[in-house]
Formats: sequence, C-alpha cells, structure tokens
Amino acid sequence: MQEQLTRLKEIFAEVSDLKRAASLLNWDQQVNMPPGGAQARGDQLATLSRLAHDRFTAAETGSLLEKLNARAGELDPESDDAHMLKMTTRHYAKQTRVPSTWVAEFARVSALSQQAWSEAKVENNFLKFRPHLEKVVRLIRQYADFFAPYEHIYDPLLDSFEPEVKTREVQAIFEVVRPRQVALIQAIRQKTQVENAFLHQPFDEQKQWDFAVEALTRVGYNWVNGRMDKSMHPFTTGIGHGDVRITTRILGEFFNASFFAAMHEGGHAMYDQGIPQSLYHTLLDEGASMAIHESQSRMWENLVGRSLPFWKFFYPQLQVYFFEQLADISLEDFYKGVNRVEASAIRVEADEATYNLHIILRLELEIGLVEGSIQVQDLPEIWNESMKATLGIIPENDAKGVLQDIHWSSGLFGYFPTYALGNIIAAQLWEHIQKDIPTLDDQMAKGDFSALLKWLRKKLHQHGAKYEPQELLERVTGSKIDPQPYIRYLEKKFGDIYHLSI
Amino acid sequence: MQEQLTRLKEIFAEVSDLKRAASLLNWDQQVNMPPGGAQARGDQLATLSRLAHDRFTAAETGSLLEKLNARAGELDPESDDAHMLKMTTRHYAKQTRVPSTWVAEFARVSALSQQAWSEAKVENNFLKFRPHLEKVVRLIRQYADFFAPYEHIYDPLLDSFEPEVKTREVQAIFEVVRPRQVALIQAIRQKTQVENAFLHQPFDEQKQWDFAVEALTRVGYNWVNGRMDKSMHPFTTGIGHGDVRITTRILGEFFNASFFAAMHEGGHAMYDQGIPQSLYHTLLDEGASMAIHESQSRMWENLVGRSLPFWKFFYPQLQVYFFEQLADISLEDFYKGVNRVEASAIRVEADEATYNLHIILRLELEIGLVEGSIQVQDLPEIWNESMKATLGIIPENDAKGVLQDIHWSSGLFGYFPTYALGNIIAAQLWEHIQKDIPTLDDQMAKGDFSALLKWLRKKLHQHGAKYEPQELLERVTGSKIDPQPYIRYLEKKFGDIYHLSI
Repeated sequence: MQEQLTRLKEIFAEVSDLKRAASLLNWDQQVNMPPGGAQARGDQLATLSRLAHDRFTAAETGSLLEKLNARAGELDPESDDAHMLKMTTRHYAKQTRVPSTWVAEFARVSALSQQAWSEAKVENNFLKFRPHLEKVVRLIRQYADFFAPYEHIYDPLLDSFEPEVKTREVQAIFEVVRPRQVALIQAIRQKTQVENAFLHQPFDEQKQWDFAVEALTRVGYNWVNGRMDKSMHPFTTGIGHGDVRITTRILGEFFNASFFAAMHEGGHAMYDQGIPQSLYHTLLDEGASMAIHESQSRMWENLVGRSLPFWKFFYPQLQVYFFEQLADISLEDFYKGVNRVEASAIRVEADEATYNLHIILRLELEIGLVEGSIQVQDLPEIWNESMKATLGIIPENDAKGVLQDIHWSSGLFGYFPTYALGNIIAAQLWEHIQKDIPTLDDQMAKGDFSALLKWLRKKLHQHGAKYEPQELLERVTGSKIDPQPYIRYLEKKFGDIYHLSI
Repeated sequence: MQEQLTRLKEIFAEVSDLKRAASLLNWDQQVNMPPGGAQARGDQLATLSRLAHDRFTAAETGSLLEKLNARAGELDPESDDAHMLKMTTRHYAKQTRVPSTWVAEFARVSALSQQAWSEAKVENNFLKFRPHLEKVVRLIRQYADFFAPYEHIYDPLLDSFEPEVKTREVQAIFEVVRPRQVALIQAIRQKTQVENAFLHQPFDEQKQWDFAVEALTRVGYNWVNGRMDKSMHPFTTGIGHGDVRITTRILGEFFNASFFAAMHEGGHAMYDQGIPQSLYHTLLDEGASMAIHESQSRMWENLVGRSLPFWKFFYPQLQVYFFEQLADISLEDFYKGVNRVEASAIRVEADEATYNLHIILRLELEIGLVEGSIQVQDLPEIWNESMKATLGIIPENDAKGVLQDIHWSSGLFGYFPTYALGNIIAAQLWEHIQKDIPTLDDQMAKGDFSALLKWLRKKLHQHGAKYEPQELLERVTGSKIDPQPYIRYLEKKFGDIYHLSI
C-alpha cells in the first residue's frame, strides 16, 4: 500500500509542478508580460494545463486510487494520507469528466481573453472584450454540461471553488442576508452621513506602498516567502511552497483602494503561507475552498483592517506618513470615514454593508449567462439596470461597470459568491475568536496580531485542503455556514457608527 | 508526408511551450523570486525540463524522423521544413543520449545552485557556493560522458552552444588572437593612459535607466515585444514569440556597467525579435548558435555602442542627462574614456582589448574542471593565479573574482568561449556591413540605425536556427570564423586612440 501511495504522490507532484508553473505564467501575464507576449502565453498555458490534466486523469491514477481505496480502512482516518486519498479520489472523479481538449482550449481562450479585458478596461471599450467573453461563456456552459445531470446548471461551476456546496444553499443564505442588508442601508440613509472627503485627496503613491508594507509586515505576512507587486486587479498567487505573492493597485487620490486591497491579499497569502510543508506536492497544499480563503482575506481586510482597535495602533503612524492630509482628522473620524456606507460602482472599494449586494448582482448575471437567458452583448445594459435596481446607481462607464472585474475574462465563473460567503464565514469565525482571545481588541490596539494569526493557523491554515469547507466550519464553529453572525456584526458595527436603533 | 510533418510540429510545439515556460521560471528566479521560493522552483524546473525531454526523445519522434528523412529528398532543400527536419534530427540524435533523470536532476541542481551563487556573491562567500558547484561539475562531467568517445571531453559541452564547432577549432582561433591582444595591451601600456575618472562618479540610477531606454528604443529594440528589468547578472530571455526580455544592472557610481550591459542585451534581444513568426513553435525559432548570438550583442555593445559615430549622436543627449558630470568633457575624451584599455577584474566591464583574455582564462579553468585536473575547492586560488598571470591583477575578493559570473552556477559550461567567438564574428560581419552600407558611420552619427538592423535581419535574424554557425557565416561572409578582421579592428581602433605605431 505504501508503494502505491508513493506512486500516487509522485504523479501528483508532477501535476502540482505543472500547475504552479502555470500560476507563475498567469501571475507574470498580469504583472509583467509585454502585450506582444499574449499569443505565446496562451499556448504555453494551454500546454501546461493540458499536460497536468492528462497526467492526473490517466488510467494509472484511476487504478492506483481503486487499489488504495479498497484498503483505505488501514489508514488512520485523521492522517494526511487518508485525507489526501479522499480528496484525490473526489478530484479524479470530477476531472475525468472533462476532456483534455477542453482544458487546453479553456486555458488558451482565457489567457487571450484576460489580455483583451485588460486592454478593453483601459480603453473603456466593451466591444473589444465581447467576442472573448462570448468564447469564455460558451466554454463555461460546455463545462457545466460535462456534469449533467445536475440539480442546477451553476452547481458544477460553484463546485470548482466551493466543493460540495450547492447553488440552492448559497441562494438560501443570500435570501437571508439580502433583506437585512437592504434594511440596514436604508436605515443608514436616513441618518447623517459620515465624512470621508479626507480619503479622497492626493496620497503619494510610494508612501501608500510603504505604509502597506509596514502594516503587512506587522500583521504577519512573510516577505521571505512572498513579494508584492502592482497589477490592474489585485490578486494572490501561490507559485510554490515558500513563494506566495500578492499584488495591489494604487490610486493616487483615494486611500482605501490600495491599502485595503493589500490587506485583503495579505489575508489570502497568510493562509497559504500557513499551510504546512508536509502537504507540499499534494492536492491538500491549498485552502479548503475559496469561501474559506475569502473568509481570511475579508477578515484581515475588514474585521481587522477596518476596526477601531487596528487603527488605534496604526493611525498615529499613518498620520506621520500623511501629515498634511490627516493631521486634523481624529482617529474616530478616520475610523468612521473608512467605514462610510455608500452605494458605489466598484465592488473592491465597497463598504461592508453594501458589498454583498455587488456579489448578489453578479451571481444573478452569471446564472443568466450560463443558463442562456442573458446574452453577452446585452451585458453592459443589464449590468447598469441591475446596479440601478440593487444599489440605486449607474456606473459612469463600462470600465467602472461591467468591465471592472477580471474574473469573467479569466473564466472564473462560480467564484463571485465565495466573496460574500467569505464575509459571512469571517464573522462566524470572529465570534469564536473573540471568545477564545478575549483580549484581542487590546492586543490589536498594541499592534500585536500574533495570537489571532496563531488561532487561524491552528484552526484553519494547518489543515490545508484536508476538509471540505462545510466540514471544516463545523469542526471549528460547530455549525455550517451561518449568516446570523454576519448580520449581528454588521448591525452592531454600523448601528454604532450611524447611531441606529436596530 | 505532410501529415507526418504536422505531427512532428505538434510534438515540438509542446516541447517548445514547456521550454519557454521554463525560461519564464528562470527569468523570474533571477528577477523576482523571493528566497523562500527556491526549493519549489527547482522542482518545477526539473519537472518541466524532464517532460520536455521525454516528449521530444519519445519513440514516436524517432519513428517520425526516420520516415520523414527517408523522403527528405521531396522537400525543397531551402524550405523551412527541410531545415527543420535536419535540425530536429540532429537534436534528436543528441538528446536521446541523455537520460531524462539526468535532465531533471540538472534542472533542479542548477536552480538551487543559482540561488546559492547569488547569495554567495552578495556575501562574498565562496564556501557557500562550493558544494553546489561541485554537484554541477559532477553532472557536467556525466553529460560529457554520454557522448563518449569524443575527440575532446569539452566538445559535447561546446556543441550545446556552438553546434558542430570543436574545442580544437576554438583553441586554434584563441591561439591566433591571444598573442596579438597581449602585444596590443603591452604597446598600450607604454603610452599615456586616457582619462576616464569622469565615468567613475555618482550617476543617478533613474537617469541611467532612462537614458538606456532612450538609446535602446532608437537602435530598434521593440518594447511591445519586450521589457527591461534589473537583475544581479544581465541577461536576455525569449519567453515566447513577441516576448523577449532583457535585464541590466545599475551601478550608482560607474556609467559603463549599466549602459553597455543594456546595449549588449538589447543586441541579443533584437536578434530574437527578428526571427520570423513562421518559425514559431519549431526548433528553428532561436539563434543559430551562441557565438552568432554574441556577435549580435557584442556588435551593438562595442562596434556600435563604443564607436565615435554612435556618441556623436548620443553624447549631447547624455550631457543633458548628466550635465554636472559631463558638461566639461569633450566628445573625443568621452569616446576615449569609454574605450580605455586597462586590465580589470570584471569581465562584463572589460574593454575590448582585454576582454578575450578573460574568456581564455575561463576556458582553461572549465576544461580543467571537466577533465578533473582542477578541483572546485581550489578554484578561488587558481582563479586569482590565472588572473595574475593573464592580466597582471588579483581581484580584491572572490565576489569580484571567481564568483563574478552566473554561468557556472546555472550549469552553463561551454558557453564562455562563445563570447570571444562573438567578438571575432562581429568584426568579421562588420567588414562586410561597412562595404554594403558605406555611409553607415554618417547614419549612426544622425541616430539612424535602421539600415544596419535591416542588414542584420536579412543576413542573419530571418534565418533563425536554419543553419549551423559556420555554415551561416560562410553564406554571409564567404568564410568560416576568421580572427583576422577582429585583430585588424582592434589594432586600428586602439592604434588611433593610443597613437600606436602597429
């Protein structure tokens, strides 16, 4: 049995190397690649993806898995090997439904589509992106069909990011939070708005960068095993054990955009950096799911980064960086300012109260595109209508509307819901963290985030992808994804800031 | 036959994608990778290299080549396909001698060795690098043995960079140039030295960068298909058609180091950028050999970049960039200054008269290491002794001595001679260029390099790797590598600068 396990690990080590190499190709495309490199990059990604797929789905893997599963009872069910076998079996069953020609085509199309998107966004020209997105949607629909019959056509897409979570579960959760968030926003609208003009003024880009580095270092991002760059859309990539990179973007006249993006990506990266070396080269060497991943990024961005204790420590330092801009702004006013609730066009800059509505809108559009009830050509118009209906605003142009996110260009259909789930899970974890670390607020106010990171490492990070997301959450919190803590968190936080009587 | 050709091209397209992806991994390691990424990067490079090797050397390739070669007479001997078939056959015969375990091990060892070298160089600590270099040398000797029997153990190494060129040919060429260069240097030593203190003073790094960009743009480097970064050791990488990147390093107190490195790498890159799209994904989509490649880089660096006509155009602009440093220095004095002949420790900063002696020294040491007559542990001492004997100086430390070059750490044994051959070929080509473009000096003095680049594109670049280097040179100049033009060039140029009566 040990021999077969070793062989299975050898196969997956090769698959893993190919996938990580592809991650670097993708990172490079977004951070460095000159425009002339797009065509060849598409070919390279297609080849690497196809080889990884072929290697993994080859008959040898199936036969090894069959033999190993027949003797799975001999393994300690809590051992890495037992979890690895279970997850690899699950993954194999899925991947063998997808032909390798599709995998190569998808990698090529999405690489070129990503390039077209980034140009279309700069030029505010949806037409340039449209034919690429049409190809992506066609491929995504094909992908879903490989898993027919399904309860919902969106299920197979969601499953790529949220193993075993169903569309109806997500919709049910969203049904709970949506009216409560809408009511919260309406209540806030009737109160005096908090001031945040001081966040919209020139902030030296290098100083913004330096401050983000300082904050990331203090919260625990490890620079020996990472680096930060600029990209159009902030993201995190694990290129290898010990090389987990983040990107941010810097707006010269808006503080929030860069800083909270850096905190967000830092949260993702600290998760990956916390996965133990012992899981290297296995399928377990990643987060449990994207929602769990987003729970980490959104936690560091919001529950930590937009909290009063956090700024008790960091605000005096920020005032040194930006004396001219912030000398006359009190800590309280700064805290309220970075938490100002206001319907806005850009998801990544949205406050916590409106954020999930951006996601709910995207989920509806994604389902429409995949079901075929929405055509790509109609997307800009439908986007604007939905924004009007959901948030009461119309983006000033497509670059700030339908073109704002990279996800669809990269073929990431099924990903968006994980952001909202991440918010919800973060709050759910946070209630337990506060019980387990009663002095956390004081620690944060002293710039000490070590107990928090240690808790996350122990409860979540060290397990990598051993557990499915709902299973992991149950182990840690005693229940599956539960929207109530998030609603409690939002209503308390914004009740205080806006003096609401909810 | 067409079907078999298509199949062969499909196979090589995959091999090419893997190799180009590996090039990016390597570029990234030198430009971006955080230290924690080294271990995984070694694994990734090992896997990609092994897969490329396995794919290419599989029985299917052999059987296709056999069938195709049987009908090779049906192809137009000047067609791309005929050349592709010939070169692929040659490459296959070589590669099938090398086991894929060796390929993977070599990729892994050299990735880690490169990392160790870069740390050892910074820390001036040869001992840190020594065990890695010992592993590399062991692998290199193994590699040579795959090709036994050979006329010279160094032949198989040289052949990787200089197809079909033999060690004895190189030694014969070096035997011709060495005494002439030594005599030239001795003659110069008896003359008044030219002044170059003005090159050794603070030069703002950003301005150095900007000026290099301006010069590269004007000579013809295409930024849509490339980019420039900083790295410890300057290099050029073709990551894909339309993505040919260069790096430079910037010294804050020495002008030559960055500028001539950028010109050198720009010369390599313009070669790769000039290879036609029609050769994409084939074995012909690269330069004919490293010596031909170096003839391009050394030509742009020296025959163009260290010429008086070049500076007639660029010097007034450089004086604007560095008014304080250069306002009082005449064009003539600047020209002489950048060409000052002086024995120095660092190869990449060496003047043209002493440069080849650095190479001759390295060739002797490489042969010693491969033959086993030199041990790695003795290398620093032997290096210093050889420097003393060859150039009359001893480097102030190992970082500026035996650790100065990246090549050995990357396993590039057999590469160094191509620099000297490149110098020689550049001069050989230059005599023909001057005949074909009699007004070239005037054009350069007006900042017009288009006729020169067009000549190079037509005579060399457009052929990619269709011809072996000696064959290509014979087509262009009527003779194989001939050291006489280089000797003539050196003696004329430095005879003028130093008023010699040679």
